[in-house]
Amino acid sequence: MRMYDIIYKKRFGGELTREEIDFAINGFVSGEIPDYQMSALAMAICMQDMTDAETFYLTDAMMRSGEIVNLDRFDGLCVDKHSTGGVGDKTTLIIAPIVASLGARVAKMSGRGLGFTGGTVDKLESFEGFKAELSAEQFFEQVEKIGLAVVGQSGNLVPADKKLYALRDVTATVDSIPLIASSIMSKKLASGAHSIVLDVKCGDGAFMKDEKSAVLLAKTMISIGKSFSRNVRALVTNMDTPLGVAVGNSLEAYEAIQILSGKGDNELRALCVALASNMASMALDISIDEAQGRVIDAIDTGRALERLRAWIVAQGGDDSAISNPDMLLSAPFKREYKASADGYICKMRAQEVGVASMLLGAGRAKKGDTIDHLSGIMLSAKYGDYVKKGDTIATLYASSESLFDEAERVLNRAIDYSQKPPIKRPIIIKSL
Amino acid sequence: MRMYDIIYKKRFGGELTREEIDFAINGFVSGEIPDYQMSALAMAICMQDMTDAETFYLTDAMMRSGEIVNLDRFDGLCVDKHSTGGVGDKTTLIIAPIVASLGARVAKMSGRGLGFTGGTVDKLESFEGFKAELSAEQFFEQVEKIGLAVVGQSGNLVPADKKLYALRDVTATVDSIPLIASSIMSKKLASGAHSIVLDVKCGDGAFMKDEKSAVLLAKTMISIGKSFSRNVRALVTNMDTPLGVAVGNSLEAYEAIQILSGKGDNELRALCVALASNMASMALDISIDEAQGRVIDAIDTGRALERLRAWIVAQGGDDSAISNPDMLLSAPFKREYKASADGYICKMRAQEVGVASMLLGAGRAKKGDTIDHLSGIMLSAKYGDYVKKGDTIATLYASSESLFDEAERVLNRAIDYSQKPPIKRPIIIKSL
Repeated sequence: MRMYDIIYKKRFGGELTREEIDFAINGFVSGEIPDYQMSALAMAICMQDMTDAETFYLTDAMMRSGEIVNLDRFDGLCVDKHSTGGVGDKTTLIIAPIVASLGARVAKMSGRGLGFTGGTVDKLESFEGFKAELSAEQFFEQVEKIGLAVVGQSGNLVPADKKLYALRDVTATVDSIPLIASSIMSKKLASGAHSIVLDVKCGDGAFMKDEKSAVLLAKTMISIGKSFSRNVRALVTNMDTPLGVAVGNSLEAYEAIQILSGKGDNELRALCVALASNMASMALDISIDEAQGRVIDAIDTGRALERLRAWIVAQGGDDSAISNPDMLLSAPFKREYKASADGYICKMRAQEVGVASMLLGAGRAKKGDTIDHLSGIMLSAKYGDYVKKGDTIATLYASSESLFDEAERVLNRAIDYSQKPPIKRPIIIKSL
Repeated sequence: MRMYDIIYKKRFGGELTREEIDFAINGFVSGEIPDYQMSALAMAICMQDMTDAETFYLTDAMMRSGEIVNLDRFDGLCVDKHSTGGVGDKTTLIIAPIVASLGARVAKMSGRGLGFTGGTVDKLESFEGFKAELSAEQFFEQVEKIGLAVVGQSGNLVPADKKLYALRDVTATVDSIPLIASSIMSKKLASGAHSIVLDVKCGDGAFMKDEKSAVLLAKTMISIGKSFSRNVRALVTNMDTPLGVAVGNSLEAYEAIQILSGKGDNELRALCVALASNMASMALDISIDEAQGRVIDAIDTGRALERLRAWIVAQGGDDSAISNPDMLLSAPFKREYKASADGYICKMRAQEVGVASMLLGAGRAKKGDTIDHLSGIMLSAKYGDYVKKGDTIATLYASSESLFDEAERVLNRAIDYSQKPPIKRPIIIKSL
């Protein structure tokens, strides 16, 4: 078998066999197949697409390239959630404690932020002392004890995806449904949960700009999950504008506490209830209506918030912010960002808001950059709101006055005003 | 400017600007742009094609990547010929002396053989002592004195093509009209001739399998040539079966002498007359009819053969084979290859015949392999001929008996027999 023939076949639209896909992925991971052949194949895949069978083989080959976590000891109670990435997405901090408080298990690997999107691990580290590195033993013990644990992504999990994604990232071969679906699902499958809820973001600040491609990605991932005998559900959700009101690590932790205290942004709450209900429904094998009742109850009674506290403490973090969330809003410098015109906010581009937050210190321009947990943006007006010139739209948080000007310039590009109220898409566009 | 954006643009069918193409090619040659980005771009080009403007910019960027030969001293008399490669193509050995004897100049770079196709330099080296390395001064002096010189390809000529072709060769991105056309034309343009005749092979043993794509390639190259103010003509010619009767270096030199002596295969002669007439017509600015008369006269009077002798001698070769061509058929071992059935030869696949000849020692499986100049195949029956089982179809030449069996097996695959005479395509399919 030769990589040349595999590239040639895909270039002309042929369907690759399991053996061919295994050969390509295994050779690429071992270094026998050079980057320049893999990038040519990736481009051919982007342009010729893959059948369901090929996508399944690709996911399988990638999944098997490294360690596979076995969660069988939890008797199918483990449920995972994956978001395709957005701005202000702090849902894991909210829904993991909710579903754990209902008896499901969340044994999750999560990433750090890069570019304009944040990462769950960074948000958790806003609680001083929180440790995202646990031994396998500590990890399983914690899940057993309090029902949830989140650790940083292990280097041994799906090395094929790590290497392939780095290559796709520099060769304009990222946006391909089978490549995105296999990348996400290989990691979710290797992470071991029996049930998975996918939050497929759609809109300006997401990979998938339109509903059609978001739905296609969701269906592809559900179909992969089925082939591996996992329960998979997906919500296609709106990411035209940031999720909730906080963007930036400790600010998002603050907002998570608000939601778990029965307060905060209605859209964010609605999305969290929907995601948590689907997770609980699958893990506990109950109807979605019954699950939703329990989820709302877990918030209203404060049990979910207490589970968040237990979680932070279990991983070594300082839980005082749970009772005193204002301490998460203590960046040394603040500046109000004001409306530049009268009108309805008819654009609040998620990606630009994410970039502005990154420039304030909340994100990484490149891997390995350090971040400032206290910096970010807290919105006081959102998409669709009517504002008058000079009204405060957002408060910017940073460690230095000098960071505000550039962030403001980016925010100017993010926000447009109109004289008529803009049409609002619901937060949950589709449930699959 | 970023290579990523250039790949992305082409992936989605955008038209690249001159600046973008220059950036990609210059960065690739200097090593700043890695192979894996270039192979992704090459694949995107294969699948999205290029406009005439893009193909022109690409050719120009490649041409300017290295040395450019200036042949202005020969007052526009220089004419070059390029064949897209085939089996048994010894036309340069025949037509270069013809047109030189008519007063045109042939100052040519030529390659060595690889795989199933032969190279002009290898064929010339069948004349013992022939030197394909000349200094620039020696080269120009010889062209001035006897009207022709052929040297091996210089490393400084179009390094961009050398590097890009090597990458395309292993990433299934060779067969693309704009990439092939720019590869060929960048070299021809950098070689400096004001007039160029292109022999675009079409059929089983050629890059271009069908007439339509061969014509498209020819037209693309003519259009590039015009953009650079060169005279370019093209013949689309048949390469379903080997050209002439000899395949292998000294055997092809023998056949060249035959043609220049007014003997030999009619199709080969017809093609040589057509190519030489077009070359002479452009270089001497005379009508094609007038040129043809002079070409035939140069053969009939023996002046062209004497020019071949002068050429061999000028480059240090032994010219005794010119008077005694049988010495070129002196391989230590010969074997007759016989028809396995009664019937018309309805297939004689050029590529397989080329592979058989390579296996006998006449070609290189990979760059740097040594070749045996005396080995090869001399056909005594051709496509369309009626043979009886046991009739000799070919004589195989080799340095060892042990090489014959495998070559025979390949020839068995090359040749089919039919009860009805097959339809013959003319050797010259189209003149452009």
